[in-house]
Amino acid sequence: MWSRSENLVQHFNTHHRNLEYLTDHTFPDSVKAIGPEFPSEDVIRDVDVLLFAIPTEGVRAALTSLKPKLDISRLPLLIFVNKGIETGTHALTLEIIADTCGPEVARIATFISGPSFAKEIVRRQPTSVSVASLSEVHAQRASKLFHQPWFRCYTGDDPIGLELAGALKNVYAIAAGIADGLGFENNTRAMLITRGLAEMTRIGSAYGASPLTFLSLAGVGDLFLTCSSPTSRNYTVGFRLGKGEKLDYITKTLGSVAEGVTTAKGLRQIVDELGVAAPIAIGVYEVLYEDKDVKERAQALLCLPPVPELDLPEETGKPAARLMKKLGMA
Amino acid sequence: MWSRSENLVQHFNTHHRNLEYLTDHTFPDSVKAIGPEFPSEDVIRDVDVLLFAIPTEGVRAALTSLKPKLDISRLPLLIFVNKGIETGTHALTLEIIADTCGPEVARIATFISGPSFAKEIVRRQPTSVSVASLSEVHAQRASKLFHQPWFRCYTGDDPIGLELAGALKNVYAIAAGIADGLGFENNTRAMLITRGLAEMTRIGSAYGASPLTFLSLAGVGDLFLTCSSPTSRNYTVGFRLGKGEKLDYITKTLGSVAEGVTTAKGLRQIVDELGVAAPIAIGVYEVLYEDKDVKERAQALLCLPPVPELDLPEETGKPAARLMKKLGMA
Repeated sequence: MWSRSENLVQHFNTHHRNLEYLTDHTFPDSVKAIGPEFPSEDVIRDVDVLLFAIPTEGVRAALTSLKPKLDISRLPLLIFVNKGIETGTHALTLEIIADTCGPEVARIATFISGPSFAKEIVRRQPTSVSVASLSEVHAQRASKLFHQPWFRCYTGDDPIGLELAGALKNVYAIAAGIADGLGFENNTRAMLITRGLAEMTRIGSAYGASPLTFLSLAGVGDLFLTCSSPTSRNYTVGFRLGKGEKLDYITKTLGSVAEGVTTAKGLRQIVDELGVAAPIAIGVYEVLYEDKDVKERAQALLCLPPVPELDLPEETGKPAARLMKKLGMA
Repeated sequence: MWSRSENLVQHFNTHHRNLEYLTDHTFPDSVKAIGPEFPSEDVIRDVDVLLFAIPTEGVRAALTSLKPKLDISRLPLLIFVNKGIETGTHALTLEIIADTCGPEVARIATFISGPSFAKEIVRRQPTSVSVASLSEVHAQRASKLFHQPWFRCYTGDDPIGLELAGALKNVYAIAAGIADGLGFENNTRAMLITRGLAEMTRIGSAYGASPLTFLSLAGVGDLFLTCSSPTSRNYTVGFRLGKGEKLDYITKTLGSVAEGVTTAKGLRQIVDELGVAAPIAIGVYEVLYEDKDVKERAQALLCLPPVPELDLPEETGKPAARLMKKLGMA
């Protein structure tokens, strides 16, 4: 395990514990920490698997450092567990990999996502995740590596849908929190999760992902976990907005920005580019960035005219097609 | 409003309240109760809309009484809100309608389903439902009739999928209850809901429904509400099974049978006929009817080998095609 923190590396190798997260959990003695320097070429070329558990904002820099050390003719299995869209570029991790390491690496990159609180995983509470790659062989290799009765892996071939679901769900978790903060009950939460899912599916479909990916553990599974968990940071931001607090104050007292707050901004631009209806995401954006009143926004959503339930867009797939071209898979 | 109980009819017309359900809610004076005799031909031919809020087991008898009083040339809007599969025949309500009133009535029949606790609806907590009919015009008429800011209606054209989702979800609510009763936590509940949804989608797809219908309010919306609500009867049965109680004792103390307990039996036969993988539904069946140990069954499910996540069946649609033929829509 590589860490950029020297302190954490030393503590881990002495006590087999993480200083910052899951501090009660003892790791096996066989797990060794390295760092704070980026792993050497010798280390990189010696491993069978590289698992990237770093925030999306750090992926481009890490992969840029990694590229010259990779032996393209003998690539390890590369697995990514970050969620989110890169700020500014709105790039998915799949695109960041292509930009930094080249299309041949992106084509075999594998992504894991799903409803999986780490604190429950370490206690071996039964958990399931989606494992997706454009390469079926690599998705299956990753699944074999991690699959256990208490950590079940289900494979798929739509990493774009998996990544979009993982990023977008945080925006809808803010919406679910807002509804609860406003005092709405079970029917309303179920409505918001379902209509949020319909919106995610519509956006994903317009982007070029498969709509069925939103039925997966990375889709509805993670959306459900995030929206119904009062300990989730995005839900908490929403709940406090619903109670009438201002974003500035919430962000200050939370200590850091919840991912959905950033994603709402990127999502707004993606939705505008795709020309797809996304009233819940736009509503969250307006509350976060245009100081709109939450009650008034909620009421406006409820007053929209009735529509067909699952109206997938007719013109779909431009962003995915662009990305596939970059990957040499057009 | 028609009731078979004379007592209820009299109480309702005097006090504008229901004696048995939502007893605190006062209905408008303009709503009148009739009964206990089945409504007369004059009444039936005078109404624009007939809403059937009766259990699935009573639908065949009610429609058989209704048929000779219907003016087929001037049909009212017929709306059904019951959920479930008929015992013995495993017929959907759409088929019961065709059998009793003929295909021309079934072709315009409209179904409403979704996450909608009645006790929240009467307090105007924002609620959304799916409204589906083989006739788009009739789905839209029903939507227009009920749509309000606090009761949003979304239209669709897959009543078979809507009906299957409404019936099947009760079996998965039992499974979610079992998991909670066994002491499993959030990751596991999210896993069960998502894998249950995948199973429902697979069964529905094999039956001939659209897989996307399971993304709807009648699908994932209602599944989510039922599985995460400790007040739901099906969830309660599962929870107590998970705690080690026996079905006989639970049924006795609950006062009546939860719908999912009956549906699990019909579903077992449907799944066997379709030849589709449904390990969760089979597991629930075995616990309910073969006295299998819940812990052992849960462990067996967790030990199944890894599989692709969304493997829709290749051969699909036979039961739906048979039903469409009956409706003259083959």
